[in-house]
Amino acid sequence: MDETDFSLSEYEARLARIRVAMAAQGLVALIVSDPSNMAWATGYDGWSFYVHQGVVIGPSGPPLWWGRGMDAAGARRTVWMGEEAIHGYDDSYVQNPDKHPMEVLAALIRDQGWAGGRVGVEMDNYYYSAKAHAVLADHLDLADATGLVNWQRLVKSPAEIARMRRAAGIVEAMHKRILEVAEPGLPKNRLVAEILHAGATGAGGHWGDYPAIVPMAPSGMDATAPHLTWDDRPMQRGEAHFFEIAGVYRRYHCPQSRTLFFGEPPATYRRAETAVQEATEAALARARPGNTCEDMAIAFYDTLGRHGFRKDSRTGYSIGLSYPPDWGERTLSLRRGDLTPLQPGMTLHFMPALWLDDGGIEITEPILITETGVEKLSTLPGALFIRS
Amino acid sequence: MDETDFSLSEYEARLARIRVAMAAQGLVALIVSDPSNMAWATGYDGWSFYVHQGVVIGPSGPPLWWGRGMDAAGARRTVWMGEEAIHGYDDSYVQNPDKHPMEVLAALIRDQGWAGGRVGVEMDNYYYSAKAHAVLADHLDLADATGLVNWQRLVKSPAEIARMRRAAGIVEAMHKRILEVAEPGLPKNRLVAEILHAGATGAGGHWGDYPAIVPMAPSGMDATAPHLTWDDRPMQRGEAHFFEIAGVYRRYHCPQSRTLFFGEPPATYRRAETAVQEATEAALARARPGNTCEDMAIAFYDTLGRHGFRKDSRTGYSIGLSYPPDWGERTLSLRRGDLTPLQPGMTLHFMPALWLDDGGIEITEPILITETGVEKLSTLPGALFIRS
Repeated sequence: MDETDFSLSEYEARLARIRVAMAAQGLVALIVSDPSNMAWATGYDGWSFYVHQGVVIGPSGPPLWWGRGMDAAGARRTVWMGEEAIHGYDDSYVQNPDKHPMEVLAALIRDQGWAGGRVGVEMDNYYYSAKAHAVLADHLDLADATGLVNWQRLVKSPAEIARMRRAAGIVEAMHKRILEVAEPGLPKNRLVAEILHAGATGAGGHWGDYPAIVPMAPSGMDATAPHLTWDDRPMQRGEAHFFEIAGVYRRYHCPQSRTLFFGEPPATYRRAETAVQEATEAALARARPGNTCEDMAIAFYDTLGRHGFRKDSRTGYSIGLSYPPDWGERTLSLRRGDLTPLQPGMTLHFMPALWLDDGGIEITEPILITETGVEKLSTLPGALFIRS
Repeated sequence: MDETDFSLSEYEARLARIRVAMAAQGLVALIVSDPSNMAWATGYDGWSFYVHQGVVIGPSGPPLWWGRGMDAAGARRTVWMGEEAIHGYDDSYVQNPDKHPMEVLAALIRDQGWAGGRVGVEMDNYYYSAKAHAVLADHLDLADATGLVNWQRLVKSPAEIARMRRAAGIVEAMHKRILEVAEPGLPKNRLVAEILHAGATGAGGHWGDYPAIVPMAPSGMDATAPHLTWDDRPMQRGEAHFFEIAGVYRRYHCPQSRTLFFGEPPATYRRAETAVQEATEAALARARPGNTCEDMAIAFYDTLGRHGFRKDSRTGYSIGLSYPPDWGERTLSLRRGDLTPLQPGMTLHFMPALWLDDGGIEITEPILITETGVEKLSTLPGALFIRS
C-alpha cells in the first residue's frame, strides 16, 4: 500500500465523523451531491457530475452510490463499497424535461426505510439544483446540510497530507516550466500548453491529475481581473503576467500563484511585493494551533495597510480534495469575523493577491498547520519572478 | 473583424430571441445562471462560476451582469454592454454562511422595477443552487425557465459555425498527436500531457481554449466505464484505449472520440466497429431538415440491433458554446421520443459509444445540419485506430 492510499479504516473514520455531524442536526440520512464530498466519503472518481448523482449516508452501513446507469461501472471501479451499494438510474432520465432522476433517488431512500425521518441535502453545494430540491421535497422531509461534509474534511490525515506534498512538488515543477519557456513574443496559449503538459506529467515520479480550475494566466490590463484564462496574445515586456495554477495528485490540490515580469518591474510592483511579503510573514507568524483564521487575517491586513495597500477580499481558504469548479473546500476563510480555530493537519492556500490599476500581483503560499506553527508546502521563492 | 467575432447586431438578435421566449412564459425578467447561457447573451468569459453570479435580462435594454465584486473587472474586459450594466457584490458575501449573495440580486431586481412581475430562473441548469432559489423566492415571484436560453442556442450563426470549424481542426490535431506518441508501456498521464498540449496549442493558426470536460482516457476494464479520466498505468497491448476529447476555439466545442488498439483488435471489436459504422451511416442518412432527432435515433438503433449490438443510452446531443462541467447544450437528444425537428445550422455530437464487457468502443462524429443534409465537421477516418 502506497502512503497516499486510503485504508478502509480511514473511510470508516470519515463516515463516523459525518454521522456525528448528522446526529447533531437530527438527520436520519444525508444526500451528498458535491463531487468532492462524494469522493471523500466513498472514493468515487469520475467526471460524471454534469448529470444528477449523489451518495446517500444512512444511519448505519456503507454509503450508497447513486447515479446514471452508465456511471455505475465507474463506481464499481473506484468506490470502497460493494456491489449492493451501487444504484444506477435509467438513461431516459438524463436531461429529459419530462421526468427527473430525483424521483428515483426519493424511491431509493424510501426503500431503505429512511423516508420517515429528516434527510439532509447540500442546498448550497455544487450540482444540487433548485429543481432537484423541489422534486425531492415532494417526497421527503428535507433539511439544509450545506457544508456538513466539507467541515469534516478540514483536518487532513497523514495519507491526505502525503498527497498534498506530492501536489506541491507538481506545482513547483509547473512554475519552473513557466520560467524556462516564457519570453516576450510567446503567445499565451503556447505557454499554457507547457503548463498543462507539466501538470499532467507530474513531478518526483508522481503523475499529475487534472485541476479543479484551469490555469488563470492574464497579462497587463487583463490581470486587473482575477479569473480570466488565456488567448493567443503574445507576452510583452512592461506588464505583469500572473499565473494562478495548481499541482494535483490524486484529486488533492496544491494551488500556488506567481507573477512574472520581463525586466525590472515598475516601482509600484516592487512596493507591492515588499508589502505582500511582509504581510504574509506577519500572518504566517500567527499561523499556529490555538489562533483563529481572523488572527492571521488581521495580522495580514494591518501590515499591508501600513505599506499603503488595501485588499477587499479574503486572503485564503482551506484546500484539499477537489473537483471543478473550485479547488477551495468552502469552509474557513482567512478574513475578519472567521473565528475558526487553526488545528494541526489543516491545509490552506494563503492567497494575498492584489489587483492594481494596471495589473495584478499574486505571490501565494500553500501551507500546512503543524503542531507548533506552520509549514510552507512549496519551496518556491516568495518573490516576483523576473526574466531578462 | 475576424469571421469568428460576434457583432453587436448578433448579440441583439440573440437577446430578441430570448425575449420572445420570455414573453411566451409571461416573464418580466430572466435570471441566467448557466455560464454558457451568460456568455451567449453577453460575451462574459471568466472562470468565476464557482461563486454565485448571473445575467439578468429585463423587458428592455441591455442585460445586466451581476457577480462578485472582483469579477466585475473581468466583466468589463469581456461583455458587450457598458459600465452601467455591471454590478458587483461585496466579497463578504462569498462562501459565508451568515449572508447570501442572492439577497443582493433580489435588491438589484427590485431597484430595476421588475419585482412586481414573474421572474424566470434556471431551476435545473448549472450553478443555480437550491439555496439560491430559496433566498430569491423570499423576495420575488419566481418561475422555472430551465433551458429557455439553451433552446435559443440550437441554430448556430455563421460566426458560431466558423468557431466550430476551427474547433474541429483542433480536435483532429489532438487525435493525430495521440497516434504519434501512443505506444505500449507509455504511462497514460504522459499521453494525456501531449493531448492537453495539443489542445491548447491549437491548429491551423488558431489557438486552443480549455474544454468543458477534461480528456476521458480509460483503457481495458476502466473503459467499460464512460467517465473515468486517467492515472499513470502504462498502456498495454490487447486492450481497448478510448479517448473522448474536444477541440475548443473561443469556448466553442467540437468533441470527437476514437478508440485505439496496439495490434489487431479482438474479433468482437471488429464486429462492433462494423456495426457502429453502418448504424452511423444509417443515422446520418436521415440527418436533414424536416426529419426529427428520433428519426436519426431509430435508424441508428435498428441498424445496430441487426448487427447484434445494443445501446441503452442516447446517441447524441447538441453542441456549441460551453463551460464546465458539460460540453453538451442540454436541449435535444438523439433518442426515441425526441421529436425536435432538425434545422440547418444545428451542430451535434453524434455519439454511438458502446460499452462492452471488457472495454469500450467510441467512434463519434461532430456534425453540422445543412440545408440539404449533413456535414461531418472533422475529416478523421471513422474507424478503429490501430498501431502496431
